[in-house]
Amino acid sequence: MDARSLSGILTDVRAKRPLVHHITNYVTVNDCANVTLCIGAAPVMAHAHDEVAEMVAMAGALVLNIGTLDHKQVDSMMAAGHRANDLDVPIILDPVGAGATRLRTETAKLLLHKLHISVLKGNAGEIATLAGAEGKVRGVDSAGVSGDPAEIARGLAEKLGIVVAVSGATDIVTDGKRVIFVDNGHEMMGKLSGTGCMASSISGAFAAASKDHVASTAAALAAFGVAGEKAAKRCEGPASFKIALLDETYRLTADEVSRGIKVRFA
Amino acid sequence: MDARSLSGILTDVRAKRPLVHHITNYVTVNDCANVTLCIGAAPVMAHAHDEVAEMVAMAGALVLNIGTLDHKQVDSMMAAGHRANDLDVPIILDPVGAGATRLRTETAKLLLHKLHISVLKGNAGEIATLAGAEGKVRGVDSAGVSGDPAEIARGLAEKLGIVVAVSGATDIVTDGKRVIFVDNGHEMMGKLSGTGCMASSISGAFAAASKDHVASTAAALAAFGVAGEKAAKRCEGPASFKIALLDETYRLTADEVSRGIKVRFA
Amino acid sequence: MDARSLSGILTDVRAKRPLVHHITNYVTVNDCANVTLCIGAAPVMAHAHDEVAEMVAMAGALVLNIGTLDHKQVDSMMAAGHRANDLDVPIILDPVGAGATRLRTETAKLLLHKLHISVLKGNAGEIATLAGAEGKVRGVDSAGVSGDPAEIARGLAEKLGIVVAVSGATDIVTDGKRVIFVDNGHEMMGKLSGTGCMASSISGAFAAASKDHVASTAAALAAFGVAGEKAAKRCEGPASFKIALLDETYRLTADEVSRGIKVRFA
Repeated sequence: MDARSLSGILTDVRAKRPLVHHITNYVTVNDCANVTLCIGAAPVMAHAHDEVAEMVAMAGALVLNIGTLDHKQVDSMMAAGHRANDLDVPIILDPVGAGATRLRTETAKLLLHKLHISVLKGNAGEIATLAGAEGKVRGVDSAGVSGDPAEIARGLAEKLGIVVAVSGATDIVTDGKRVIFVDNGHEMMGKLSGTGCMASSISGAFAAASKDHVASTAAALAAFGVAGEKAAKRCEGPASFKIALLDETYRLTADEVSRGIKVRFA
Repeated sequence: MDARSLSGILTDVRAKRPLVHHITNYVTVNDCANVTLCIGAAPVMAHAHDEVAEMVAMAGALVLNIGTLDHKQVDSMMAAGHRANDLDVPIILDPVGAGATRLRTETAKLLLHKLHISVLKGNAGEIATLAGAEGKVRGVDSAGVSGDPAEIARGLAEKLGIVVAVSGATDIVTDGKRVIFVDNGHEMMGKLSGTGCMASSISGAFAAASKDHVASTAAALAAFGVAGEKAAKRCEGPASFKIALLDETYRLTADEVSRGIKVRFA
Repeated sequence: MDARSLSGILTDVRAKRPLVHHITNYVTVNDCANVTLCIGAAPVMAHAHDEVAEMVAMAGALVLNIGTLDHKQVDSMMAAGHRANDLDVPIILDPVGAGATRLRTETAKLLLHKLHISVLKGNAGEIATLAGAEGKVRGVDSAGVSGDPAEIARGLAEKLGIVVAVSGATDIVTDGKRVIFVDNGHEMMGKLSGTGCMASSISGAFAAASKDHVASTAAALAAFGVAGEKAAKRCEGPASFKIALLDETYRLTADEVSRGIKVRFA
């Protein structure tokens, strides 16, 4: 795995145009749909218990995001997740707000326990909470971790046998053995709602295009980060940044990712 | 009916400012609200079983969109729809994803069977599915139809005694006798989430302003298409296109529609 | 209280960065999240009955918005509201559509009766309805009031012992004794969906930063209005206006508010 092979995954996403089934929150759902289209995949949002198993069977990836969770949604996530596991459709779990409330923490743990999750992607506080380390989450924001996030993530990935990604100024992606640091992105991405959720959607699209989910997740976060860097050059605040971010995601080429990617292999 | 009479309906929408009651999906609901305002009507979104009959009684049109369906929502759609029928409020049905899952296909059929729908507006795969023809739908996208979409739509419209519209590069509107082809629009409209839903909202606003629903639907799609053509001239990707599309919908004049409209009567 | 002290509250919001817990509608929820971030606070949206009491305990304010109401949501609003009252977390109630349907009117009254609401903020029709005066609401828009909105609001505030705010070309804020008129804002703010909801979110952020809720609400509406005036100078329609409005909210300084604020004390 090197930077060039990572940037090639974008080309595969666009060639394959995978369907990415989301069961997600109603706050950022429109951004998730649009970023999925912009990166070159096809989004579908469906949450009814009756249809999720059928919908996920068409999909290249399933994105579970607990940002506005309730019990009914958990049931649907379980139904979709079991079917996804049966069909080897990779699942991305974004444990939004795990650590802030018991419902979120326990739901994230339940999903991790009952389903085979391919990629768990959260902020440092969420990941630390799920690793049993000391992590604080206020609302949906990380509010501090004691310990090294990379080591916490690596340990959790090793224990669960999955890929764990930690979003932040430097993103961390690890399968318990390999650890990749992604330095792409821009601080503007933290000034608006939804960039974390969008990164999970893109990680879903990339997971549908490459079976190496350390590579696919690192590539997804790097690609989105490169788009963010370009967008930051022509915005006047968080809202115009979001517009530019989506546009740049759409315009992004594998060549630009290849030139702009900043990854370090630990 | 000619191009000039079609473009006059926009003037009527703005004079009447009809309330358009939506029971719709949570992915594109904000776009639907804003495009309804931009075209000159007033949106309201209300889904509680307890209030939909009361709300629709104030409305000039009811838009039912099954993009993020569940059983509870179907009950509310039925309640609102029955009241709409009693009061002669036209109903627009957007059968998002019919053909992709049984729940969506059967719900769309149920609504078509139990309610008097004025306008059924979907993509080629959805309409073919509901016509009993061979149509494929992947997620919420048409994935191919065998047969001529115009003939499939015409047959379905004739059978059900309603207006059927098929969205696509060329939109088709038919009541089973008349068939109108609308060549307005721009390929950018397919690059973002929500343009189909927005077209249904506008079709609702136009249906509230004109009782000839072949004319009102063709006029709605043409007007939105003209706005799309204007928007495409000043965008840098799908997100800036959406902003421009809403702005151009707001700025659109009947005169511009009259000059820009491209309809063919078959 | 004077204009300078009002504009200082923005500085306090940014220093404190309060968490603003929303139980709100799915139409404008993304705008609410983003405007909360732009003004310098932190949004969280959580509606599950199981977690709202826990979430609101972290919050500086609770915003209840009934724009897409159902019974389950009312239960969650009650649970969150009781906990907020126990912990002295101020509650902002936006009674969207009260007067349009019985469910909305009765829910707004229930929340006002069972909870201690700090700030009730609605349009003239909604406030008149809740005051028992003659107010008409069509969908979610005020459709006329007989009587003086300021006097109606003042009487309601006095009777309930709360702060009442009426949005409009001139906003009115009163605690039953003091009445403040806020002349900031721009007519473009009425051309798009969500500005009323966003104003409630900002009022929540300001209520978390100042215990004088007449002052905090007037300051919130004035600050958002100043941002709106700036945004109107560089937009081409409602959608580009919304982008500019969010950007200008983010860029807004206490000094700009101090220079631009237009309040009259009655």
